[in-house]
Amino acid sequence: MKDLQVIKIGGNIIDDDEQLVAFLNDFSAVKGPKILVHGGGKMATKTAEKLGLKSIMIEGRRVTDELNLEVVVMVYAGLINKKIVARLNARQCKAIGLSGADFFAIETVKRNPVPVDYGFVGDITSASVKAGEIGQLLDMGLVPVFSAITSDADGHLLNTNADAIASGLAVALSTLYTVKLVYCFEKEGVLRSEDELISKLDIGEYDQLKATGIVYEGMIPKLDNAFNALASGVGEVWIKHARNLNITKGTSLKRP
Amino acid sequence: MKDLQVIKIGGNIIDDDEQLVAFLNDFSAVKGPKILVHGGGKMATKTAEKLGLKSIMIEGRRVTDELNLEVVVMVYAGLINKKIVARLNARQCKAIGLSGADFFAIETVKRNPVPVDYGFVGDITSASVKAGEIGQLLDMGLVPVFSAITSDADGHLLNTNADAIASGLAVALSTLYTVKLVYCFEKEGVLRSEDELISKLDIGEYDQLKATGIVYEGMIPKLDNAFNALASGVGEVWIKHARNLNITKGTSLKRP
Repeated sequence: MKDLQVIKIGGNIIDDDEQLVAFLNDFSAVKGPKILVHGGGKMATKTAEKLGLKSIMIEGRRVTDELNLEVVVMVYAGLINKKIVARLNARQCKAIGLSGADFFAIETVKRNPVPVDYGFVGDITSASVKAGEIGQLLDMGLVPVFSAITSDADGHLLNTNADAIASGLAVALSTLYTVKLVYCFEKEGVLRSEDELISKLDIGEYDQLKATGIVYEGMIPKLDNAFNALASGVGEVWIKHARNLNITKGTSLKRP
Repeated sequence: MKDLQVIKIGGNIIDDDEQLVAFLNDFSAVKGPKILVHGGGKMATKTAEKLGLKSIMIEGRRVTDELNLEVVVMVYAGLINKKIVARLNARQCKAIGLSGADFFAIETVKRNPVPVDYGFVGDITSASVKAGEIGQLLDMGLVPVFSAITSDADGHLLNTNADAIASGLAVALSTLYTVKLVYCFEKEGVLRSEDELISKLDIGEYDQLKATGIVYEGMIPKLDNAFNALASGVGEVWIKHARNLNITKGTSLKRP
Protein backbone atom coordinates (compact mmCIF):
# COMPACT_ATOMS: atom_id res chain seq x y z
CA MET A 1 0.00 0.00 0.00
CA LYS A 2 1.06 3.58 -0.64
CA ASP A 3 1.90 5.92 2.22
CA LEU A 4 -0.43 8.76 3.24
CA GLN A 5 0.08 11.44 5.85
CA VAL A 6 -2.94 12.94 7.62
CA ILE A 7 -1.74 16.08 9.37
CA LYS A 8 -3.87 18.10 11.77
CA ILE A 9 -2.96 21.68 12.65
CA GLY A 10 -4.34 23.25 15.80
CA GLY A 11 -6.07 26.56 16.26
CA ASN A 12 -3.27 28.24 18.21
CA ILE A 13 -0.94 27.90 15.22
CA ILE A 14 -3.60 29.24 12.87
CA ASP A 15 -4.06 32.30 15.11
CA ASP A 16 -0.36 33.23 14.74
CA ASP A 17 0.30 34.17 11.13
CA GLU A 18 4.07 33.81 11.38
CA GLN A 19 3.80 30.25 12.74
CA LEU A 20 1.09 29.43 10.19
CA VAL A 21 3.24 30.55 7.24
CA ALA A 22 6.21 28.54 8.57
CA PHE A 23 3.94 25.51 8.93
CA LEU A 24 2.52 25.88 5.41
CA ASN A 25 6.08 26.00 4.05
CA ASP A 26 6.87 22.76 5.89
CA PHE A 27 3.58 21.14 4.88
CA SER A 28 4.20 21.99 1.21
CA ALA A 29 7.55 20.19 1.48
CA VAL A 30 5.97 16.92 2.70
CA LYS A 31 6.42 14.32 -0.07
CA GLY A 32 3.69 12.00 -1.31
CA PRO A 33 -0.07 11.88 -0.71
CA LYS A 34 -1.17 14.07 2.19
CA ILE A 35 -4.25 15.57 3.81
CA LEU A 36 -4.44 18.63 6.05
CA VAL A 37 -7.13 19.04 8.71
CA HIS A 38 -7.35 22.43 10.39
CA GLY A 39 -8.95 23.60 13.58
CA GLY A 40 -10.50 26.95 14.14
CA GLY A 41 -8.64 29.05 16.66
CA LYS A 42 -9.91 32.19 18.26
CA MET A 43 -11.10 33.87 15.07
CA ALA A 44 -14.61 32.38 15.36
CA THR A 45 -14.97 33.63 18.93
CA LYS A 46 -13.72 37.09 17.92
CA THR A 47 -16.06 37.25 14.91
CA ALA A 48 -19.00 36.07 17.03
CA GLU A 49 -18.18 38.78 19.57
CA LYS A 50 -18.09 41.47 16.89
CA LEU A 51 -21.47 40.24 15.66
CA GLY A 52 -22.81 40.54 19.22
CA LEU A 53 -23.09 36.79 19.82
CA LYS A 54 -21.99 35.05 22.98
CA SER A 55 -19.62 32.09 22.74
CA ILE A 56 -20.47 29.52 25.38
CA MET A 57 -17.92 26.80 26.08
CA ILE A 58 -18.57 23.68 28.16
CA GLU A 59 -15.45 21.66 29.06
CA GLY A 60 -13.50 23.39 26.31
CA ARG A 61 -16.11 22.63 23.65
CA ARG A 62 -18.17 25.25 21.90
CA VAL A 63 -21.93 25.24 22.32
CA THR A 64 -23.16 25.91 18.79
CA ASP A 65 -26.56 27.52 18.39
CA GLU A 66 -27.85 28.47 14.94
CA LEU A 67 -26.16 31.89 14.77
CA ASN A 68 -22.88 30.58 16.17
CA LEU A 69 -23.04 27.77 13.61
CA GLU A 70 -23.20 30.37 10.83
CA VAL A 71 -20.12 32.05 12.30
CA VAL A 72 -18.06 28.86 12.52
CA VAL A 73 -19.06 27.88 8.97
CA MET A 74 -18.04 31.34 7.73
CA VAL A 75 -14.75 31.37 9.62
CA TYR A 76 -13.64 27.71 9.42
CA ALA A 77 -14.98 26.59 6.02
CA GLY A 78 -14.72 30.06 4.49
CA LEU A 79 -11.97 32.37 5.65
CA ILE A 80 -9.45 30.00 7.25
CA ASN A 81 -9.90 27.22 4.72
CA LYS A 82 -9.59 29.44 1.64
CA LYS A 83 -6.67 31.43 3.06
CA ILE A 84 -4.76 28.19 3.66
CA VAL A 85 -5.72 26.80 0.26
CA ALA A 86 -4.67 29.95 -1.63
CA ARG A 87 -1.34 30.04 0.18
CA LEU A 88 -0.64 26.35 -0.44
CA ASN A 89 -1.40 26.69 -4.15
CA ALA A 90 1.01 29.63 -4.31
CA ARG A 91 3.59 27.12 -2.92
CA GLN A 92 2.94 24.60 -5.73
CA CYS A 93 0.89 22.39 -3.41
CA LYS A 94 -2.37 21.63 -5.24
CA ALA A 95 -4.67 22.08 -2.27
CA ILE A 96 -8.43 21.56 -2.53
CA GLY A 97 -10.47 22.95 0.35
CA LEU A 98 -13.15 20.61 1.64
CA SER A 99 -15.57 20.17 4.48
CA GLY A 100 -17.31 17.00 5.54
CA ALA A 101 -20.40 18.36 3.77
CA ASP A 102 -18.76 18.19 0.33
CA PHE A 103 -19.93 14.97 -1.43
CA PHE A 104 -20.76 13.87 2.15
CA ALA A 105 -17.03 13.24 2.52
CA ILE A 106 -17.69 12.84 6.26
CA GLU A 107 -21.33 12.24 7.03
CA THR A 108 -22.12 13.01 10.65
CA VAL A 109 -25.07 12.89 13.01
CA LYS A 110 -26.11 15.69 15.33
CA ARG A 111 -24.93 14.90 18.84
CA ASN A 112 -27.55 13.68 21.30
CA PRO A 113 -28.62 16.72 23.37
CA VAL A 114 -28.61 14.52 26.50
CA PRO A 115 -26.74 14.86 28.89
CA VAL A 116 -25.26 18.12 27.49
CA ASP A 117 -26.87 20.01 24.60
CA TYR A 118 -23.97 21.28 22.52
CA GLY A 119 -26.34 22.39 19.76
CA PHE A 120 -25.35 21.91 16.11
CA VAL A 121 -22.39 19.65 16.80
CA GLY A 122 -21.61 16.55 14.77
CA ASP A 123 -20.25 13.14 15.76
CA ILE A 124 -18.45 10.98 13.24
CA THR A 125 -17.56 7.34 12.82
CA SER A 126 -14.83 6.13 10.46
CA ALA A 127 -17.59 4.30 8.52
CA SER A 128 -19.04 7.68 7.58
CA VAL A 129 -15.91 8.72 5.63
CA LYS A 130 -15.99 8.42 1.82
CA ALA A 131 -12.50 6.94 1.53
CA GLY A 132 -12.98 5.98 -2.14
CA GLU A 133 -13.66 9.50 -3.38
CA ILE A 134 -10.96 11.00 -1.18
CA GLY A 135 -8.54 8.42 -2.60
CA GLN A 136 -9.52 9.48 -6.14
CA LEU A 137 -8.75 13.12 -5.30
CA LEU A 138 -5.36 12.04 -3.91
CA ASP A 139 -4.74 10.04 -7.13
CA MET A 140 -5.32 13.28 -9.08
CA GLY A 141 -2.40 14.77 -7.16
CA LEU A 142 -4.71 16.98 -5.11
CA VAL A 143 -4.13 17.74 -1.43
CA PRO A 144 -7.42 17.80 0.50
CA VAL A 145 -7.57 20.52 3.17
CA PHE A 146 -10.45 19.82 5.53
CA SER A 147 -12.19 22.27 7.81
CA ALA A 148 -14.10 20.67 10.67
CA ILE A 149 -17.54 21.54 9.31
CA THR A 150 -19.72 18.58 8.37
CA SER A 151 -23.37 17.91 7.57
CA ASP A 152 -26.05 15.33 8.28
CA ALA A 153 -28.30 13.38 5.93
CA ASP A 154 -30.97 16.12 6.13
CA GLY A 155 -28.56 18.77 4.82
CA HIS A 156 -27.92 20.55 8.13
CA LEU A 157 -24.41 21.82 8.73
CA LEU A 158 -22.70 20.74 11.96
CA ASN A 159 -19.64 21.91 13.88
CA THR A 160 -17.38 18.93 14.45
CA ASN A 161 -14.19 18.39 16.43
CA ALA A 162 -11.13 18.69 14.17
CA ASP A 163 -9.13 16.07 16.12
CA ALA A 164 -11.96 13.59 15.58
CA ILE A 165 -12.10 14.47 11.85
CA ALA A 166 -8.37 13.80 11.52
CA SER A 167 -8.67 10.49 13.36
CA GLY A 168 -11.75 9.45 11.36
CA LEU A 169 -10.05 10.25 8.03
CA ALA A 170 -6.88 8.42 9.05
CA VAL A 171 -8.78 5.27 10.11
CA ALA A 172 -11.03 5.20 7.03
CA LEU A 173 -8.10 5.74 4.64
CA SER A 174 -6.12 2.94 6.32
CA THR A 175 -8.08 0.54 4.11
CA LEU A 176 -6.30 2.10 1.09
CA TYR A 177 -3.03 3.49 2.46
CA THR A 178 -0.44 2.99 5.17
CA VAL A 179 -1.39 6.08 7.16
CA LYS A 180 0.75 8.27 9.38
CA LEU A 181 -1.42 10.57 11.51
CA VAL A 182 0.28 13.67 12.92
CA TYR A 183 -1.33 16.06 15.39
CA CYS A 184 0.55 19.38 15.23
CA PHE A 185 0.00 21.99 17.92
CA GLU A 186 1.81 24.57 20.04
CA LYS A 187 3.55 22.13 22.41
CA GLU A 188 6.44 19.71 21.92
CA GLY A 189 4.17 16.71 22.41
CA VAL A 190 2.88 14.93 25.53
CA LEU A 191 4.88 16.39 28.42
CA ARG A 192 5.64 14.73 31.77
CA SER A 193 6.68 18.13 33.09
CA GLU A 194 7.23 21.51 31.48
CA ASP A 195 10.55 20.46 29.95
CA GLU A 196 10.27 16.67 29.83
CA LEU A 197 8.86 15.35 26.56
CA ILE A 198 7.53 11.79 26.52
CA SER A 199 8.90 10.48 23.23
CA LYS A 200 7.02 7.15 23.24
CA LEU A 201 3.68 6.53 24.91
CA ASP A 202 1.48 3.42 25.12
CA ILE A 203 -2.11 3.21 26.30
CA GLY A 204 -1.18 1.84 29.75
CA GLU A 205 1.18 4.75 30.40
CA TYR A 206 -1.48 7.14 29.07
CA ASP A 207 -4.02 5.79 31.59
CA GLN A 208 -1.49 6.42 34.35
CA LEU A 209 -0.83 9.97 33.15
CA LYS A 210 -4.58 10.64 33.19
CA ALA A 211 -4.97 9.11 36.65
CA THR A 212 -2.18 11.28 38.07
CA GLY A 213 -3.48 14.44 36.33
CA ILE A 214 -0.34 14.92 34.26
CA VAL A 215 -2.49 14.72 31.14
CA TYR A 216 -5.67 16.76 31.49
CA GLU A 217 -8.34 18.89 29.78
CA GLY A 218 -7.96 19.31 26.01
CA MET A 219 -5.17 16.75 25.77
CA ILE A 220 -7.54 13.95 26.83
CA PRO A 221 -9.92 13.98 23.84
CA LYS A 222 -6.91 14.57 21.54
CA LEU A 223 -5.10 11.51 22.90
CA ASP A 224 -8.32 9.46 22.99
CA ASN A 225 -8.71 10.18 19.25
CA ALA A 226 -5.04 9.42 18.67
CA PHE A 227 -5.06 6.06 20.52
CA ASN A 228 -8.36 5.14 18.88
CA ALA A 229 -6.73 5.72 15.47
CA LEU A 230 -3.73 3.56 16.41
CA ALA A 231 -6.04 0.75 17.57
CA SER A 232 -8.10 0.99 14.36
CA GLY A 233 -5.53 0.42 11.65
CA VAL A 234 -3.53 3.65 11.43
CA GLY A 235 0.15 2.79 11.03
CA GLU A 236 1.77 5.54 13.06
CA VAL A 237 0.49 8.38 15.26
CA TRP A 238 2.45 11.43 16.42
CA ILE A 239 1.69 14.41 18.67
CA LYS A 240 4.20 17.19 18.05
CA HIS A 241 4.93 20.89 17.73
CA ALA A 242 3.91 22.35 14.35
CA ARG A 243 7.47 23.60 13.80
CA ASN A 244 8.74 19.99 14.02
CA LEU A 245 6.50 18.63 11.26
CA ASN A 246 9.44 17.35 9.21
CA ILE A 247 11.68 16.53 12.19
CA THR A 248 11.53 13.27 14.20
CA LYS A 249 10.71 14.99 17.46
CA GLY A 250 7.53 14.73 19.49
CA THR A 251 5.49 11.98 21.11
CA SER A 252 4.90 8.87 19.07
CA LEU A 253 2.20 6.46 20.21
CA LYS A 254 3.29 2.90 20.85
CA ARG A 255 1.25 -0.28 20.49
CA PRO A 256 1.10 -2.17 23.83
CA MET B 1 -18.54 15.21 -26.91
CA LYS B 2 -20.61 14.79 -23.76
CA ASP B 3 -23.06 17.48 -22.68
CA LEU B 4 -22.38 19.74 -19.71
CA GLN B 5 -24.60 22.37 -18.15
CA VAL B 6 -23.02 25.35 -16.38
CA ILE B 7 -25.75 27.01 -14.35
CA LYS B 8 -25.35 30.32 -12.56
CA ILE B 9 -27.74 31.36 -9.80
CA GLY B 10 -28.05 35.02 -8.87
CA GLY B 11 -27.91 36.62 -5.45
CA ASN B 12 -31.57 37.63 -5.31
CA ILE B 13 -32.62 33.98 -5.45
CA ILE B 14 -30.08 33.05 -2.78
CA ASP B 15 -31.49 35.76 -0.50
CA ASP B 16 -34.96 34.19 -0.62
CA ASP B 17 -34.83 30.78 1.07
CA GLU B 18 -38.07 29.53 -0.44
CA GLN B 19 -36.92 30.30 -3.99
CA LEU B 20 -33.48 28.86 -3.23
CA VAL B 21 -34.93 25.54 -2.01
CA ALA B 22 -37.18 25.31 -5.09
CA PHE B 23 -34.17 26.01 -7.31
CA LEU B 24 -32.02 23.38 -5.54
CA ASN B 25 -34.80 20.82 -6.09
CA ASP B 26 -34.83 21.69 -9.81
CA PHE B 27 -31.02 21.74 -10.04
CA SER B 28 -30.81 18.29 -8.40
CA ALA B 29 -33.16 16.99 -11.11
CA VAL B 30 -30.92 18.17 -13.99
CA LYS B 31 -29.52 15.06 -15.70
CA GLY B 32 -25.89 14.56 -16.68
CA PRO B 33 -22.71 16.49 -15.84
CA LYS B 34 -23.41 19.90 -14.34
CA ILE B 35 -21.73 22.78 -12.52
CA LEU B 36 -23.36 25.40 -10.30
CA VAL B 37 -21.93 28.90 -9.89
CA HIS B 38 -23.49 31.06 -7.21
CA GLY B 39 -23.44 34.77 -6.56
CA GLY B 40 -23.53 36.40 -3.20
CA GLY B 41 -26.65 38.37 -2.55
CA LYS B 42 -27.21 40.81 0.26
CA MET B 43 -25.85 38.60 3.03
CA ALA B 44 -22.30 39.94 2.62
CA THR B 45 -23.50 43.54 2.85
CA LYS B 46 -25.59 42.71 5.93
CA THR B 47 -22.71 40.87 7.61
CA ALA B 48 -20.30 43.71 6.80
CA GLU B 49 -22.79 46.17 8.31
CA LYS B 50 -23.09 44.11 11.50
CA LEU B 51 -19.29 44.06 11.71
CA GLY B 52 -19.26 47.84 11.39
CA LEU B 53 -17.79 47.90 7.86
CA LYS B 54 -19.03 50.10 5.05
CA SER B 55 -19.94 48.49 1.71
CA ILE B 56 -19.02 50.80 -1.13
CA MET B 57 -20.46 50.03 -4.56
CA ILE B 58 -19.34 51.69 -7.81
CA GLU B 59 -21.60 51.01 -10.80
CA GLY B 60 -23.14 48.05 -9.00
CA ARG B 61 -19.79 46.47 -8.20
CA ARG B 62 -18.43 46.07 -4.71
CA VAL B 63 -15.24 47.88 -3.72
CA THR B 64 -13.36 45.22 -1.77
CA ASP B 65 -10.84 46.41 0.83
CA GLU B 66 -9.06 43.88 3.04
CA LEU B 67 -11.77 43.66 5.71
CA ASN B 68 -14.58 43.49 3.16
CA LEU B 69 -12.64 40.76 1.36
CA GLU B 70 -12.65 38.70 4.58
CA VAL B 71 -16.42 39.16 4.78
CA VAL B 72 -17.11 38.05 1.20
CA VAL B 73 -14.82 35.05 1.60
CA MET B 74 -16.65 34.08 4.81
CA VAL B 75 -20.11 34.58 3.35
CA TYR B 76 -19.67 33.38 -0.27
CA ALA B 77 -17.05 30.61 0.07
CA GLY B 78 -18.14 29.68 3.59
CA LEU B 79 -21.75 30.07 4.57
CA ILE B 80 -23.57 30.21 1.20
CA ASN B 81 -21.39 27.61 -0.49
CA LYS B 82 -21.58 25.06 2.32
CA LYS B 83 -25.31 25.57 2.88
CA ILE B 84 -25.97 24.89 -0.81
CA VAL B 85 -23.59 21.90 -0.84
CA ALA B 86 -25.13 20.30 2.27
CA ARG B 87 -28.63 20.72 0.86
CA LEU B 88 -27.69 19.30 -2.55
CA ASN B 89 -26.07 16.25 -0.96
CA ALA B 90 -29.22 15.68 1.06
CA ARG B 91 -30.97 15.59 -2.38
CA GLN B 92 -28.63 12.83 -3.70
CA CYS B 93 -26.69 15.38 -5.77
CA LYS B 94 -22.99 14.80 -4.99
CA ALA B 95 -22.01 18.46 -4.74
CA ILE B 96 -18.43 19.53 -4.03
CA GLY B 97 -18.01 23.16 -2.98
CA LEU B 98 -15.15 24.94 -4.69
CA SER B 99 -13.69 28.37 -5.20
CA GLY B 100 -11.28 29.49 -7.86
CA ALA B 101 -8.55 29.24 -5.21
CA ASP B 102 -8.94 25.45 -4.89
CA PHE B 103 -6.18 23.76 -6.97
CA PHE B 104 -6.08 27.16 -8.76
CA ALA B 105 -9.24 26.01 -10.55
CA ILE B 106 -9.61 29.60 -11.76
CA GLU B 107 -6.40 31.56 -11.47
CA THR B 108 -7.05 35.30 -11.55
CA VAL B 109 -5.09 38.54 -11.46
CA LYS B 110 -5.93 41.50 -9.26
CA ARG B 111 -7.69 44.14 -11.31
CA ASN B 112 -5.65 47.16 -12.35
CA PRO B 113 -6.47 49.96 -9.84
CA VAL B 114 -6.56 52.46 -12.75
CA PRO B 115 -9.03 54.00 -13.64
CA VAL B 116 -11.15 52.70 -10.73
CA ASP B 117 -9.60 50.97 -7.70
CA TYR B 118 -12.01 48.17 -6.82
CA GLY B 119 -9.53 46.74 -4.32
CA PHE B 120 -9.15 42.95 -4.02
CA VAL B 121 -11.10 42.10 -7.14
CA GLY B 122 -10.02 39.44 -9.64
CA ASP B 123 -10.23 39.28 -13.42
CA ILE B 124 -10.29 35.96 -15.21
CA THR B 125 -9.60 34.63 -18.66
CA SER B 126 -10.85 31.26 -19.90
CA ALA B 127 -7.17 30.24 -20.23
CA SER B 128 -6.87 30.48 -16.44
CA VAL B 129 -9.45 27.71 -15.87
CA LYS B 130 -8.15 24.20 -15.05
CA ALA B 131 -10.59 22.39 -17.34
CA GLY B 132 -8.72 19.07 -17.04
CA GLU B 133 -9.07 18.76 -13.28
CA ILE B 134 -12.66 20.00 -13.31
CA GLY B 135 -13.41 17.38 -15.99
CA GLN B 136 -11.89 14.68 -13.73
CA LEU B 137 -14.18 15.75 -10.87
CA LEU B 138 -17.17 15.57 -13.23
CA ASP B 139 -16.03 12.08 -14.34
CA MET B 140 -16.14 11.05 -10.67
CA GLY B 141 -19.84 11.94 -10.71
CA LEU B 142 -19.23 15.03 -8.59
CA VAL B 143 -21.11 18.30 -9.09
CA PRO B 144 -18.80 21.30 -8.61
CA VAL B 145 -20.47 24.24 -6.85
CA PHE B 146 -18.36 27.36 -7.31
CA SER B 147 -18.42 30.49 -5.21
CA ALA B 148 -16.99 33.57 -6.92
CA ILE B 149 -13.89 33.75 -4.73
CA THR B 150 -10.58 33.22 -6.53
CA SER B 151 -6.88 33.75 -5.83
CA ASP B 152 -3.77 34.98 -7.59
CA ALA B 153 -0.37 33.36 -8.05
CA ASP B 154 0.89 34.98 -4.83
CA GLY B 155 -1.83 33.31 -2.75
CA HIS B 156 -4.03 36.38 -2.24
CA LEU B 157 -7.77 35.85 -2.28
CA LEU B 158 -9.83 37.97 -4.68
CA ASN B 159 -13.52 38.77 -5.05
CA THR B 160 -14.57 37.96 -8.62
CA ASN B 161 -17.76 38.48 -10.59
CA ALA B 162 -19.90 35.33 -10.58
CA ASP B 163 -21.25 35.93 -14.12
CA ALA B 164 -17.67 36.10 -15.39
CA ILE B 165 -16.78 32.89 -13.51
CA ALA B 166 -19.73 31.09 -15.11
CA SER B 167 -18.75 32.34 -18.56
CA GLY B 168 -15.06 31.49 -18.04
CA LEU B 169 -15.88 27.95 -16.86
CA ALA B 170 -18.29 27.41 -19.77
CA VAL B 171 -15.75 28.56 -22.37
CA ALA B 172 -12.85 26.58 -20.92
CA LEU B 173 -14.92 23.40 -20.60
CA SER B 174 -16.10 23.73 -24.21
CA THR B 175 -12.84 22.06 -25.20
CA LEU B 176 -14.09 18.89 -23.44
CA TYR B 177 -17.89 19.15 -23.52
CA THR B 178 -20.79 20.58 -25.51
CA VAL B 179 -21.69 23.24 -22.98
CA LYS B 180 -25.03 24.83 -22.24
CA LEU B 181 -24.62 27.97 -20.10
CA VAL B 182 -27.68 29.10 -18.16
CA TYR B 183 -27.90 32.36 -16.20
CA CYS B 184 -30.75 32.04 -13.68
CA PHE B 185 -32.03 35.12 -11.91
CA GLU B 186 -35.21 36.80 -10.67
CA LYS B 187 -36.54 37.93 -14.09
CA GLU B 188 -38.02 36.00 -17.01
CA GLY B 189 -35.03 36.83 -19.22
CA VAL B 190 -34.15 39.86 -21.35
CA LEU B 191 -37.30 41.99 -21.42
CA ARG B 192 -38.33 44.49 -24.09
CA SER B 193 -40.92 45.85 -21.67
CA GLU B 194 -42.21 44.71 -18.30
CA ASP B 195 -44.28 41.91 -19.81
CA GLU B 196 -42.58 41.28 -23.16
CA LEU B 197 -39.88 38.61 -23.02
CA ILE B 198 -37.35 38.49 -25.86
CA SER B 199 -37.10 34.76 -26.53
CA LYS B 200 -34.19 34.95 -28.99
CA LEU B 201 -31.51 37.63 -29.06
CA ASP B 202 -28.50 38.14 -31.32
CA ILE B 203 -25.60 40.51 -30.80
CA GLY B 204 -26.91 43.10 -33.30
CA GLU B 205 -30.26 43.29 -31.52
CA TYR B 206 -28.43 43.44 -28.18
CA ASP B 207 -26.43 46.48 -29.38
CA GLN B 208 -29.71 48.17 -30.34
CA LEU B 209 -31.26 47.38 -26.94
CA LYS B 210 -28.24 48.93 -25.25
CA ALA B 211 -28.34 52.00 -27.51
CA THR B 212 -32.02 52.58 -26.74
CA GLY B 213 -31.55 52.03 -22.99
CA ILE B 214 -33.89 49.02 -22.88
CA VAL B 215 -31.00 46.96 -21.55
CA TYR B 216 -29.06 48.80 -18.84
CA GLU B 217 -27.01 48.59 -15.65
CA GLY B 218 -26.40 45.08 -14.30
CA MET B 219 -27.83 43.39 -17.39
CA ILE B 220 -25.00 44.78 -19.55
CA PRO B 221 -22.06 42.96 -17.95
CA LYS B 222 -24.23 39.83 -17.66
CA LEU B 223 -25.08 39.90 -21.38
CA ASP B 224 -21.51 40.84 -22.31
CA ASN B 225 -20.33 37.70 -20.49
CA ALA B 226 -23.10 35.68 -22.11
CA PHE B 227 -22.37 36.81 -25.69
CA ASN B 228 -18.65 36.41 -25.11
CA ALA B 229 -19.29 32.78 -24.09
CA LEU B 230 -21.40 32.17 -27.21
CA ALA B 231 -18.66 33.62 -29.42
CA SER B 232 -16.00 31.52 -27.70
CA GLY B 233 -17.23 27.98 -28.20
CA VAL B 234 -20.15 27.57 -25.77
CA GLY B 235 -22.94 25.67 -27.53
CA GLU B 236 -25.98 27.36 -26.06
CA VAL B 237 -26.57 30.32 -23.73
CA TRP B 238 -29.78 31.13 -21.82
CA ILE B 239 -30.89 33.94 -19.52
CA LYS B 240 -33.96 32.89 -17.54
CA HIS B 241 -35.89 32.93 -14.30
CA ALA B 242 -34.57 30.46 -11.72
CA ARG B 243 -38.00 28.83 -11.47
CA ASN B 244 -37.84 27.97 -15.19
CA LEU B 245 -34.55 26.06 -15.00
CA ASN B 246 -36.04 22.88 -16.45
CA ILE B 247 -38.57 24.64 -18.71
CA THR B 248 -37.81 25.99 -22.21
CA LYS B 249 -38.69 29.56 -21.31
CA GLY B 250 -36.38 32.55 -21.19
CA THR B 251 -34.03 34.37 -23.56
CA SER B 252 -31.75 32.22 -25.66
CA LEU B 253 -28.81 33.88 -27.37
CA LYS B 254 -28.62 33.47 -31.13
CA ARG B 255 -25.54 33.41 -33.33
CA PRO B 256 -25.66 36.19 -35.95
